[in-house]
Amino acid sequence: MNTYDLIMKKRNGGILEKDEITYLVDGFTNGKIPDYQMSAFLMAVYFQGMNDEETTNLTMAMADSGDRLDLSGINGRKVDKHSTGGVGDKTSLIVGPILASLGVPVAKMSGRGLGHTGGTLDKLESIPGTQIYISQEDFIKQVNEVGLAIIGQTAHIDPADKKLYALRDVTATVESIPLIASSIMSKKLASGSDAILLDVKFGSGAFMKNIDKARELALEMVKIGKNLGRDTRAILTDMDQPLGFAVGNSLEVKEAIATLNGHGPKDFVELCLGAASILLTQAGLAKTKEEGRAMAEKAMHDGSGLAKLAALIKAQHGDESYIYHPEKFPLAKHIIPVYAKEDGYIKRIDCLSIGLGAMKLGAGRERMDDVIDMASGIVLAKKVGDFVKAGDKLCECHTNKEDYQEVIAEIGDAFILTKESFPYPPIIHEVIEG
Amino acid sequence: MNTYDLIMKKRNGGILEKDEITYLVDGFTNGKIPDYQMSAFLMAVYFQGMNDEETTNLTMAMADSGDRLDLSGINGRKVDKHSTGGVGDKTSLIVGPILASLGVPVAKMSGRGLGHTGGTLDKLESIPGTQIYISQEDFIKQVNEVGLAIIGQTAHIDPADKKLYALRDVTATVESIPLIASSIMSKKLASGSDAILLDVKFGSGAFMKNIDKARELALEMVKIGKNLGRDTRAILTDMDQPLGFAVGNSLEVKEAIATLNGHGPKDFVELCLGAASILLTQAGLAKTKEEGRAMAEKAMHDGSGLAKLAALIKAQHGDESYIYHPEKFPLAKHIIPVYAKEDGYIKRIDCLSIGLGAMKLGAGRERMDDVIDMASGIVLAKKVGDFVKAGDKLCECHTNKEDYQEVIAEIGDAFILTKESFPYPPIIHEVIEG
Repeated sequence: MNTYDLIMKKRNGGILEKDEITYLVDGFTNGKIPDYQMSAFLMAVYFQGMNDEETTNLTMAMADSGDRLDLSGINGRKVDKHSTGGVGDKTSLIVGPILASLGVPVAKMSGRGLGHTGGTLDKLESIPGTQIYISQEDFIKQVNEVGLAIIGQTAHIDPADKKLYALRDVTATVESIPLIASSIMSKKLASGSDAILLDVKFGSGAFMKNIDKARELALEMVKIGKNLGRDTRAILTDMDQPLGFAVGNSLEVKEAIATLNGHGPKDFVELCLGAASILLTQAGLAKTKEEGRAMAEKAMHDGSGLAKLAALIKAQHGDESYIYHPEKFPLAKHIIPVYAKEDGYIKRIDCLSIGLGAMKLGAGRERMDDVIDMASGIVLAKKVGDFVKAGDKLCECHTNKEDYQEVIAEIGDAFILTKESFPYPPIIHEVIEG
Repeated sequence: MNTYDLIMKKRNGGILEKDEITYLVDGFTNGKIPDYQMSAFLMAVYFQGMNDEETTNLTMAMADSGDRLDLSGINGRKVDKHSTGGVGDKTSLIVGPILASLGVPVAKMSGRGLGHTGGTLDKLESIPGTQIYISQEDFIKQVNEVGLAIIGQTAHIDPADKKLYALRDVTATVESIPLIASSIMSKKLASGSDAILLDVKFGSGAFMKNIDKARELALEMVKIGKNLGRDTRAILTDMDQPLGFAVGNSLEVKEAIATLNGHGPKDFVELCLGAASILLTQAGLAKTKEEGRAMAEKAMHDGSGLAKLAALIKAQHGDESYIYHPEKFPLAKHIIPVYAKEDGYIKRIDCLSIGLGAMKLGAGRERMDDVIDMASGIVLAKKVGDFVKAGDKLCECHTNKEDYQEVIAEIGDAFILTKESFPYPPIIHEVIEG
C-alpha cells in the first residue's frame, strides 16, 4: 500500500477500504505521510466525497489514533451533547447541570472559542479558580460524586483530528461533510459516551450557512453513530441570530445563572429544554420527550439545576459564590449602548458580525494564543421579530479597550430593520432521531 | 493576498488573476508557500481546471521564476521541437541535424529518460566523450558556428517547474492539462526559441493514452504559444508501438545514423520528414510543407544531415568517428531473440511493456539516480501490421544483466497477434497549426 496510489484512487472517485483509511490516518499521525500528500488527499476528498462506510472507517481510525477515554468506572448511561459552535451558545452550562440534577451522569469534554464562536471552557474559566484540566481519575471520580464534570480535551485524545484539522484549516479543506462529520464523531467516540445529541447549527453565525447543509451533516453523523453502536440523535437549530441575549464569557455565565433561576431568554430556554428532553429519553430516564421536558422544566425552576452548576464549579476548584452572587463578576470599563436609528421590526441580527464584534471587543480569540477578556462582549436588548422605536436600545457593548468606535459601528450595522411585522423564528427546526 | 484564499477561490471554481498566479508561483519557488498548501492548490486545479488566460499566466510566471535563455546572439529564426516523450523516440537526432544543414539555427535544451521513456541527452552520451553541460556562452557560440547544439537544462531555467513537478509527482496531480501544458510551455518560453513544434504523442507508450486527450493538450499549448507571441504548432503522433525499431541508447543512435544514411524505418522517417517540413515553414525557409519535405528528404539522403550530426558531436567534445563507424559502439554481452509462437499479423506491440522491458534490461532509469547501460535495449524485427510465421523473430533483447529471463518473457507478451490482416497505422494523425 502506498500513499500516492490512495490519493489517486480517491481523486478518481474510488472507494477506500478500511485498511487503506487506517494506513492514511496512522501514517499521517505518526509523521510517515507528509503534510503535502495528506493535503492533496483531503482536497480529493473535498471533491469526491466519501460514502457512509468510508466516513465511519475514517471516524474509527481517528478515534483509535490516541487514547480512548474509559468511562466504565462511571455508573449509569453516560450522555453527551455536542454543539457545532455558535454565538452566545451557553447551552452546556444549563443542560449539563439539569441532567446531572436528575441523575444522568454527564462526563463532558469541551472546547475553547475561536474566531466568532465561543467555547464552554472559556466561559467556565470566567469564574475565578475554576480548573478545566484535571486527571482522568479525578474526572471519573467527580462524575460519580457530583454527577457532572466539564473538562478540556487531553492531548492524547484523537491526535489525528488535531493534526488533520490544523492542516485542513490552512488548505481550504474544512468544508467537507465527511471530514467535518468524522472530526466531530471521532472525538465523541474517543471520549466514551453511550449516547450523543448533536446540536447542528445553521445560519450566519454557524459553520453551516443553511439548513440543507446542516441536515446533510447531521444525517451523516447520526449514520456514523449508528454504525458505531452509539445512540446518536441530532437537532437542527437556528444560528441566524445570537442565542439568548448575552455574547461574551462572564456575560453568558450570568445569563446561564439567570436561566437556572427560571429567568432565561425565550429562545435559549426552548433550546435547553428541547435538548434536555431528548437527552433524558436517550438516558432512559424519560419514556417520552414530553415527560423529559417536564422533568427538565422543573429542574430549571426549583433551583436543583442551579445547585448542580454550583457543585460543578466547586468540584473544579472554582468560587461557587459567583453562582449565587453573579453581581460579583467584574464589569468592563466601557458599556456602550447602541440605539435604533428608525422605527421598525428587527428583521435580522447578523450573527457573524455580532460574533466577530464581540471578539474584537475582547471576548474572543483571532488566534488560539490570544488572551480573552472575560468581562467583554455584547448584550442584546432586542431579538429578531421585536419592534423598536428610533432611539430604543438595540444592544450594549462591553469592553475594556479604548479604540472601540469602529467595532461599535460594525455591531450597529448588524441590526437590519423592516417595516412589516413577522412571526418570531423557531429555535429548533428539526429533530433527527436516526 | 494570501494563499488560503487563492486555494479556496480555485477550489470553488473561481478564475485566478495574473497577480494571484504570480504570487503562488513566486511564493512556492522561494519557499514562502509551503508544499502542503501548494499540493492542495494543485489538486483543486486538477478538479476545477484553468482557462486559457490562467494557463498562459501560469506559464509566464513559471518561465520568469528563473533565468530566461537569451538567444539574441544567434543569427536567424530559432526553432525548437519538443516531444512529450515516448519509446524509441530519437527524432531530435535527425530533425536537428537536417534543419541545421539547411541553415536553420537549432539551440536545443533536452532532457533525460525516466521510467519507460528515453531522453535525448542519454542517447548523446552513448557516444564517448560527448558533453551535454556547457556554458551559455559556448552554447550560443556553437549554434552560430555549427548551426546546432543540444544541451541539458541548466539549474536556473524554470526552477518553479522543477519544484512543482516534483510535488505533482508524489501527490497524484500530474494528469492535469493546464499543469502539463504550463510545465512544457514555460520551459520552451524560458529557453528562448522563436518557433516551437510540439510532438504530442498518444497511445500505450505515451503519457496521453488517447488521441482526444493528446489533442486537448496540444490545443492548449498552441493557444498558450499564440498568447505569448510564439509561432507554436503541434502534431499528434502514434505511440501505440515503439518508434522505428530500436529502443535503448546506443541502439537508437545507430538507428539515427542509418536514417541519416537514407536507411531509416518507415514510420520514423515519416515522422522526421513531417516534423522537419513544418519546422522549415516555421523558420521561413520553405514556403510550403511540400517544399520543406523535399528539402528535408534531400538532406536525409545526400549526407549533409549526417555530416551535421558528426559536427554536433565533435563540437560537444564527442568522438565523431562513431557517426561514420557505428560498428564501434560496444554490443551488450547477451543478445536474446524472441520468436513468434504462432502465425499471424501483429495487431499490437504494447509500448509501455517494451519501454519498461528496455528499462529493466538496463537501458533506462527507474529513479533519476539510476545508472544507464548504453548498450542495452530492444531491437524490433517486426512492426504492427507485419505478418509473421511461428518461429520468426519478433525482436532482439540486448542486456549485460544475467537475470533477464523474466523480463524477456514480459517483452514477448507485449506482442499480440491476430489472424486478419489490416492496414499499417499512420504515424502522424493530425497537424495543429493554430
